[in-house]
Amino acid sequence: MGDERARPIEWLGDHVRLLDQTRLPGEEVYLELDSYQGLAEAIRELRIRGAPAIGVAAAYGMALAALKIEAGSRDDFLTRLRRASRALAATRPTAVNLRWAIERMKKVAAAGRDIGRIKQALVEEAVRIHREQFEADRRLSQLGAGLIKDGSVILTHCNTGALATTGCGTALGVIGAAAEGGKAVKVLATETRPLLQGARLTCWELQRAGIPATLITDSMAGYFMSRGGVDCVIVGADRIAANGDTANKIGTYTLAVLARENGIPFYVAAPTSTIDPTLAAGDDIPIEQRRPEEVTHIRGVPIAPEGCQAANPAFDITPHKYITAIITERGIIREPFGEGIRRIL
Amino acid sequence: MGDERARPIEWLGDHVRLLDQTRLPGEEVYLELDSYQGLAEAIRELRIRGAPAIGVAAAYGMALAALKIEAGSRDDFLTRLRRASRALAATRPTAVNLRWAIERMKKVAAAGRDIGRIKQALVEEAVRIHREQFEADRRLSQLGAGLIKDGSVILTHCNTGALATTGCGTALGVIGAAAEGGKAVKVLATETRPLLQGARLTCWELQRAGIPATLITDSMAGYFMSRGGVDCVIVGADRIAANGDTANKIGTYTLAVLARENGIPFYVAAPTSTIDPTLAAGDDIPIEQRRPEEVTHIRGVPIAPEGCQAANPAFDITPHKYITAIITERGIIREPFGEGIRRIL
Repeated sequence: MGDERARPIEWLGDHVRLLDQTRLPGEEVYLELDSYQGLAEAIRELRIRGAPAIGVAAAYGMALAALKIEAGSRDDFLTRLRRASRALAATRPTAVNLRWAIERMKKVAAAGRDIGRIKQALVEEAVRIHREQFEADRRLSQLGAGLIKDGSVILTHCNTGALATTGCGTALGVIGAAAEGGKAVKVLATETRPLLQGARLTCWELQRAGIPATLITDSMAGYFMSRGGVDCVIVGADRIAANGDTANKIGTYTLAVLARENGIPFYVAAPTSTIDPTLAAGDDIPIEQRRPEEVTHIRGVPIAPEGCQAANPAFDITPHKYITAIITERGIIREPFGEGIRRIL
Repeated sequence: MGDERARPIEWLGDHVRLLDQTRLPGEEVYLELDSYQGLAEAIRELRIRGAPAIGVAAAYGMALAALKIEAGSRDDFLTRLRRASRALAATRPTAVNLRWAIERMKKVAAAGRDIGRIKQALVEEAVRIHREQFEADRRLSQLGAGLIKDGSVILTHCNTGALATTGCGTALGVIGAAAEGGKAVKVLATETRPLLQGARLTCWELQRAGIPATLITDSMAGYFMSRGGVDCVIVGADRIAANGDTANKIGTYTLAVLARENGIPFYVAAPTSTIDPTLAAGDDIPIEQRRPEEVTHIRGVPIAPEGCQAANPAFDITPHKYITAIITERGIIREPFGEGIRRIL
């Protein structure tokens, strides 16, 4: 998305600098965090969010934890590091990138002998995960841009830009690559209730990138699709099962059903780190249930009568039959998705 | 909905008392209005809303206009009344009840000879329209309640209770009648962005009626439907074309598509005054486009970056093929809807 790309998290030698996304777009506030507990809190409270970005954040969390451990023995060090890893893994249940990054970090720790060297190796691995994510975004965005026709109106949901990935983005990366490649594209951005990542973050990123965008409420997507006003839908993913079923921000399933009903291609863009080959199908993906106050209040303002009950599932599952293609850094997968996913991993 | 039924508008001899619905649920503020211009402003700003309610309000607006006209001749009187009728009709383009009520009032005026008598006849006609609406709600609610199974979870959209109709409600009237008839029902109420009539008004009315309700964002409806958590969907209508295609609050089309995809009955509840037999199909129904600020701001708080563009269609069209039945005070209509509508009118 050009030079104006947001930097949701940066490693500064012994701590991280994190852009507090809950304050956007009103304020650009950066937090300096040097403990894994602080980073875990930031992940839980969505100061950093987006499946790939929280994978990177968890890797840095492991590095921060390692740097702070003063252990007498390697075993003691590894025991304490496991404690940190459990705390980080527990922050958010749906996005698999978090667990994937932590597993990579744990393997690096287990392979080392000397505590000092392990600490250094963990920092290096976290930086490598960050760099790999950056590269994966770049490659999948280029691949995905090939699917976008010149003059397209693209509908997207939630936020999948630099803020969500630490790279150039997934779904929004594809849109940015299409625009940089000279294609005229326009974006319909859903606001994405309850936490408004579309309105607050996607519109902010598209504005900085100079890509024309129109904000709509989530309930308006069907209106525009049914009137021929949408050429394709692209979304990100929080976890993709072995058969291609995809967990993503609540509302994604609805967009996929509407897209199929109206003959509109529906694309999922995600790095392979979002694929969880251990789960056969989407039904097995755990869905995070968040606080009802996120529904009954908007930016702190109550919108419902006092005492009103509310539900708040943060994700839903889009069965693979609704998905036209999954765009990854290793290639574009189509039906049969199970086979394509096995081949690519 | 019991004795706690809200009274959105009341005729008090020479003026109306109107509950300002934009202030709900936080504050219960009543406005005393004695001019049609004030009432037109209240309709435009959604202080009173809901297709049947704005039909009743427009009728009272005509009565208020008539009472204030000091004309030298019957022709002069009718000319000035037409001016008021045009202003009232222009407030909101989609709901046909508004135009329907104004046409009834104009006919009454045209039939009278003496200005004093015409004024009195207009007041009587407005009160009659109000009472008829009340009766229509009661009858369609009873009829509709027969479609609701004991133990149902019912998903509804926007607000269709007493606040929306001045009677006992349409979709919410059906739910209330089922509950009063002894059926255990639970409601999933969509918040209904942009103006949150579901969160603000439906949850408020259901709370007062003692019917268990859970608030969800519009984007969550698909999640609950796909998991077997919804037994039927009931919504109201702003205009129904001769073939059964239905204009209703933005997001309704999406709910209808999701319902069909998941094998869930989708009901429309509306008085026959909402049917517009002059329009062959839904494509002909004008869709009101409202201010973008209703999307970029929520309850006055900005949710998008400054300068962000937004679209704001207030309604969408649900083609009749997605509708299981239309519940009116004169009977329940099913496919073929065109025939059923002709028979009933």
